[in-house]
Amino acid sequence: GVGEVYLVGAGPGDPDLLTFRALRLMQRADVVLYDRLIGEGILGLVRRDAERIHVGKAARRHTMPQEEISRLMVRLAREGKRVLRLKGGDPFIFGRGGEEIEVLAEEGIPFQVVPGITAASGCATYAGIPLTHRDHAHSVSFVTAHGRDGLLDLDWEHLIRPDQTLAIYMGLSSLPALVEAFARRGVDRSMPVAVIEKGTRPGQRIVTGTLGDIAGKVEAEGLGSPAMIIVGTVVTLRDKLDWGGGVE
Amino acid sequence: GVGEVYLVGAGPGDPDLLTFRALRLMQRADVVLYDRLIGEGILGLVRRDAERIHVGKAARRHTMPQEEISRLMVRLAREGKRVLRLKGGDPFIFGRGGEEIEVLAEEGIPFQVVPGITAASGCATYAGIPLTHRDHAHSVSFVTAHGRDGLLDLDWEHLIRPDQTLAIYMGLSSLPALVEAFARRGVDRSMPVAVIEKGTRPGQRIVTGTLGDIAGKVEAEGLGSPAMIIVGTVVTLRDKLDWGGGVE
Repeated sequence: GVGEVYLVGAGPGDPDLLTFRALRLMQRADVVLYDRLIGEGILGLVRRDAERIHVGKAARRHTMPQEEISRLMVRLAREGKRVLRLKGGDPFIFGRGGEEIEVLAEEGIPFQVVPGITAASGCATYAGIPLTHRDHAHSVSFVTAHGRDGLLDLDWEHLIRPDQTLAIYMGLSSLPALVEAFARRGVDRSMPVAVIEKGTRPGQRIVTGTLGDIAGKVEAEGLGSPAMIIVGTVVTLRDKLDWGGGVE
Repeated sequence: GVGEVYLVGAGPGDPDLLTFRALRLMQRADVVLYDRLIGEGILGLVRRDAERIHVGKAARRHTMPQEEISRLMVRLAREGKRVLRLKGGDPFIFGRGGEEIEVLAEEGIPFQVVPGITAASGCATYAGIPLTHRDHAHSVSFVTAHGRDGLLDLDWEHLIRPDQTLAIYMGLSSLPALVEAFARRGVDRSMPVAVIEKGTRPGQRIVTGTLGDIAGKVEAEGLGSPAMIIVGTVVTLRDKLDWGGGVE
């Protein structure tokens, strides 16, 4: 008979942030398709005899095109396999999970989806930065800086506002361009910013500053990907609420 | 010696979406402070002999004021207890987690924070609605409809936009007022909307429609709290991606 596909969010990196349902499906699957950002700590929890297929993509270096991943899942499921598609963070928040399972739905392959803790939530928590707060932000927006055609032309002046927090996924390499785009649209240079490298993972590093100085600070510290950028006055709460999360 | 406080997100309701770290701390704590929305399925996983204190608040019916909860945690920790503060969803996304631990930080009480799957993520996943999608939304915003002084005067026309998904927490009782506010600001009445009652929990119900007809549909179905409102064209993906999540 036909198998099944499990589209599972593995969370931001710390294996301790996996959900019970994620682990159960990881131990049930016959074959696992995983991304570059899934660490060994998590991959090691997959059933020992499961086949592992690396389909991960680094930014701008797609190992396997989207369409091909979907077709592979269809083929494996048709062979009767229980297929685990393991994604960092949450599959439905910048995980392209919707895109990948559309083909499954069209082909009539049974699937289920497991939400994961999205990177913004994990990174902010370990950094001691509430994403919303009575005195600082009544809303929070998650954006990705990149679309298929490079830096997105988003309405940044509406995304960076008093009373709102902005979390930017996959934005580190564009940080200077982002800062320039914000400034051009009149965003105050004193707006607090945090950049969190390898959030919740071993080696996590956090740099805070303002829109005016963050790009220089991040360059001086040599931060690399993966990194989360958080913009908003909630960042100042870290001075008080840093609880040492993510530090070994 | 002084104890410790664990501020833990229990996720959207399904106990299967708890993280490993959450469960570990639930089984370590001597005393548990929990909210109204924490179901028995989750509360039953707390250490059997732990003291349980209900501090939950229904909307506009605060059982225990914020400040009092914080003071209670300080007192219990000073007695040497391991105190679990268990919150629905994610403590740092509309969980008032930041507010509650500020007092702990000021008083020098050790604490740690565990992120949880936020309600928007859990509800959207179980409903088959990706929050972001290449063809529909490059950003997603989470807002709460209520502040301390009633319906928030948010810039709804910037929150409901093409290429963006909006998730509204705790907005069900304000749905007619929200729809009216959107219309007044020129949002198209054909914009797709989903309302998810008891998302990820037993009895989950989902109603979809448009800004023009959703309030009537929700009233006809008699939906109640807790409910999540999702606005954006991603809602139409449910026609294809509904995988029966949350249905027993």
